[in-house]
Amino acid sequence: MSETIVSNPSHARLAWIAGVGASAGLGAALARRFAHEGFSVAVTGRSHERLAIVVDEIRAAGGQAHAFPGDVTSERDLNAIAQQLTAHGTLEVAIFNAAGATRAPTLELSAEQFEAAWRVTTLGGFLFARAALAPLLAAGRGSLLFTGATAALRGRPPFAAFASAKAGLRSLTQSLAREFGPRNIHVAHVVVDGGIDGERLRTSAPQRVAERGPDGLLNPDEIADAYWHLHQQGRTAWSQEIDLRPFNESF
Amino acid sequence: MSETIVSNPSHARLAWIAGVGASAGLGAALARRFAHEGFSVAVTGRSHERLAIVVDEIRAAGGQAHAFPGDVTSERDLNAIAQQLTAHGTLEVAIFNAAGATRAPTLELSAEQFEAAWRVTTLGGFLFARAALAPLLAAGRGSLLFTGATAALRGRPPFAAFASAKAGLRSLTQSLAREFGPRNIHVAHVVVDGGIDGERLRTSAPQRVAERGPDGLLNPDEIADAYWHLHQQGRTAWSQEIDLRPFNESF
Amino acid sequence: MSETIVSNPSHARLAWIAGVGASAGLGAALARRFAHEGFSVAVTGRSHERLAIVVDEIRAAGGQAHAFPGDVTSERDLNAIAQQLTAHGTLEVAIFNAAGATRAPTLELSAEQFEAAWRVTTLGGFLFARAALAPLLAAGRGSLLFTGATAALRGRPPFAAFASAKAGLRSLTQSLAREFGPRNIHVAHVVVDGGIDGERLRTSAPQRVAERGPDGLLNPDEIADAYWHLHQQGRTAWSQEIDLRPFNESF
Amino acid sequence: MSETIVSNPSHARLAWIAGVGASAGLGAALARRFAHEGFSVAVTGRSHERLAIVVDEIRAAGGQAHAFPGDVTSERDLNAIAQQLTAHGTLEVAIFNAAGATRAPTLELSAEQFEAAWRVTTLGGFLFARAALAPLLAAGRGSLLFTGATAALRGRPPFAAFASAKAGLRSLTQSLAREFGPRNIHVAHVVVDGGIDGERLRTSAPQRVAERGPDGLLNPDEIADAYWHLHQQGRTAWSQEIDLRPFNESF
Repeated sequence: MSETIVSNPSHARLAWIAGVGASAGLGAALARRFAHEGFSVAVTGRSHERLAIVVDEIRAAGGQAHAFPGDVTSERDLNAIAQQLTAHGTLEVAIFNAAGATRAPTLELSAEQFEAAWRVTTLGGFLFARAALAPLLAAGRGSLLFTGATAALRGRPPFAAFASAKAGLRSLTQSLAREFGPRNIHVAHVVVDGGIDGERLRTSAPQRVAERGPDGLLNPDEIADAYWHLHQQGRTAWSQEIDLRPFNESF
Repeated sequence: MSETIVSNPSHARLAWIAGVGASAGLGAALARRFAHEGFSVAVTGRSHERLAIVVDEIRAAGGQAHAFPGDVTSERDLNAIAQQLTAHGTLEVAIFNAAGATRAPTLELSAEQFEAAWRVTTLGGFLFARAALAPLLAAGRGSLLFTGATAALRGRPPFAAFASAKAGLRSLTQSLAREFGPRNIHVAHVVVDGGIDGERLRTSAPQRVAERGPDGLLNPDEIADAYWHLHQQGRTAWSQEIDLRPFNESF
Repeated sequence: MSETIVSNPSHARLAWIAGVGASAGLGAALARRFAHEGFSVAVTGRSHERLAIVVDEIRAAGGQAHAFPGDVTSERDLNAIAQQLTAHGTLEVAIFNAAGATRAPTLELSAEQFEAAWRVTTLGGFLFARAALAPLLAAGRGSLLFTGATAALRGRPPFAAFASAKAGLRSLTQSLAREFGPRNIHVAHVVVDGGIDGERLRTSAPQRVAERGPDGLLNPDEIADAYWHLHQQGRTAWSQEIDLRPFNESF
Repeated sequence: MSETIVSNPSHARLAWIAGVGASAGLGAALARRFAHEGFSVAVTGRSHERLAIVVDEIRAAGGQAHAFPGDVTSERDLNAIAQQLTAHGTLEVAIFNAAGATRAPTLELSAEQFEAAWRVTTLGGFLFARAALAPLLAAGRGSLLFTGATAALRGRPPFAAFASAKAGLRSLTQSLAREFGPRNIHVAHVVVDGGIDGERLRTSAPQRVAERGPDGLLNPDEIADAYWHLHQQGRTAWSQEIDLRPFNESF
């Protein structure tokens, strides 16, 4: 994690993405997209192996990427990573993409499961925001983006824990936007409405993937386009929230 | 806590209210209202002294009330109280009125403060709901009501922690309503929009109280009217969410 | 319409309800409820015959009611009725219950149908509000209540015209609440979410009525309870919006 | 309006923008942006003179543009224009940017003013959508975008008429999105939250412009970027609604 990246690190534009797992997931797609745009990308997740794959792919494609393994529920991990980033360039984009999902009737949810969903999704978002805001504010500009879900807008069984946590995260992004927008930090919440065509669904629900038909699931690269656009928005016209869903999604 | 209440406890209609503190607060007003309507009222809060005052007041007015001290963040406490209630009658109304508020710029909020707000407000609501749903479902009917706040609808500094926790609670009540409405449990969320004319504000912000003028703060007894009405609603026309605010509140 | 009602009309408390049709509908239930509470009720609708039936029923039950036929899309009609009411007592409650529904794929909706839905639902609400506000403001207090629908919150085919009109009405009630709440007029919007167990559904969709099962449709009398409660709310705790739905409604 | 545009019109990609006025307004900025991206742009508005200026500017910059004067409240005008467009190429983007604003206390709004706001804003949107959907559906793809406002989300005096109309328009876009998304038409609503740095504000409220400071008003070109991005979104990740506001806007 302390390797030398560039001869003149202060010139590197950094994008930090937390919640990076499988190469076929959204976190990895976000990393690839910002690397493709010339950013040096720092990827954070719990699995060293998965981060290594994502980093290798980006480098193979000519991009810059570095793995910063860590747990988004650990203030210590996130602050340590944020500290390390300062040596590698200037943080310009920070994306929180982690979430903990539990699916169960509410009376079968244990207190531990309810808490775990919150800890990854909401507390993680808070800790990540605080860790990232220090270098962003120091730089005087930047984007702080969060992956949300329709569940954030509407609690519904069997997703009581996930929905509550996502609602708490969404609220947090509103507070952050109101507080740090005037300090030149663009805070936005992306409501992903529908299944993502990634490793998780393809492994856990292949039938659902098949039933949705062509273009019926959100393509991670097309989601990543939206994050890139959010970062590109001029500051007289910033979005705080956008939704994204497949053309044929019922909503 | 194990005293005998009535000779034929199975006939007693119980209302359980968690988040009862000062006599001049909303929790106490809710207890008084349901006692006035003939319920045997079980009040839960952390302060034995404050609960005793509320219980004494209700009894002095001819009502039935019992203190069940406990911490809403403790699954053990809540489940133990729910267990004890079964000996005292039939639970018909359960109200969650606890909340943890922290006011600070987001970067000055510690992880502990952010968590504490959630633990009382959101996790407490979850634990209370689970503890109360067992006897409510056993009875085949009843109301499960939650005190919410405008912050639940809109994250804003310096209330990032409080708003996030209240948003998580609101989402939970939506999941519960969708899951348990068809099982004859009325789940509702009351958005209290404005300052409550209770002990907290009169102590902490007397100037704000004065500035609001007559009827400019929510009267706890008038809030309690709304909870009573929610419980009275026929089941073909249940409210899941209502808002309440003073006539002259800016919103 | 100009008959003498009471010997001392200034003492009569008036409730004016527009959008009264079949005896088995919501408008009539609202009229009966306020009559039952001692109000002299003025009912407005397009059908003289239907109004006469509702008035007769109320009188037979010992209440006071008077028919004021008129079209809610006619400013002249509404202003004339409001004028006549002043001779009959003091207006204390005004309820707008009219709506125009059209069900069609959007490309099959004519401009005339789209406009007609708005004219009855939204413009009618505006004209009614203006006509009623004059006597309400003169009295220095009162309630101005509107029947809304879930469609107000969510546009969806084949209800594009109805939903747009109801969304426009809901917005109007928010403006009115913010403007006239501080002048002591309680403006509220009732989101009726589900089918009403009234003449319309029983005639047009008897199968749907049967499928919903017992208590599966909103009972007009139970809806009317909510309006009565809204009028009873103390002014430190007014609701601007409540929703109502059957216990087993999917939402 | 019937001039020959290109030798092989079926190859021209058309963008039709209704609600084009001053060169310094949003409609003109949208036209310039899509022309810059290679579209042949059809601009509609009531003023021949203003349309001519916009068209001339675009042509001077090397782009293709044509004026189609018309009134968005006229079904005849819009259908005639849509018909003419078929001779000029394939419609791929249709943007409704018209709105009628009236600012007055609600009791001072006449029925005519209330109706006029709806007629331009909501009915206009409906008529435009119907006129544009025919060629879009025939082409099998395209974008149908609407300019919205924060008022669409929240009725507030002195904007009762404007807010109601914008709420009705927003609802319409939701119905359209649900109905035509599965038919490959991307329908989106852009919530412009804040003052636009255009001719209207600079003329009518120069002091407000000054007070907002640098970048404190929405730049039309930066708003147009968002529309362009919406059109570029892949169909597995379409936005139905985005908000846009200056970095320092209070919201």
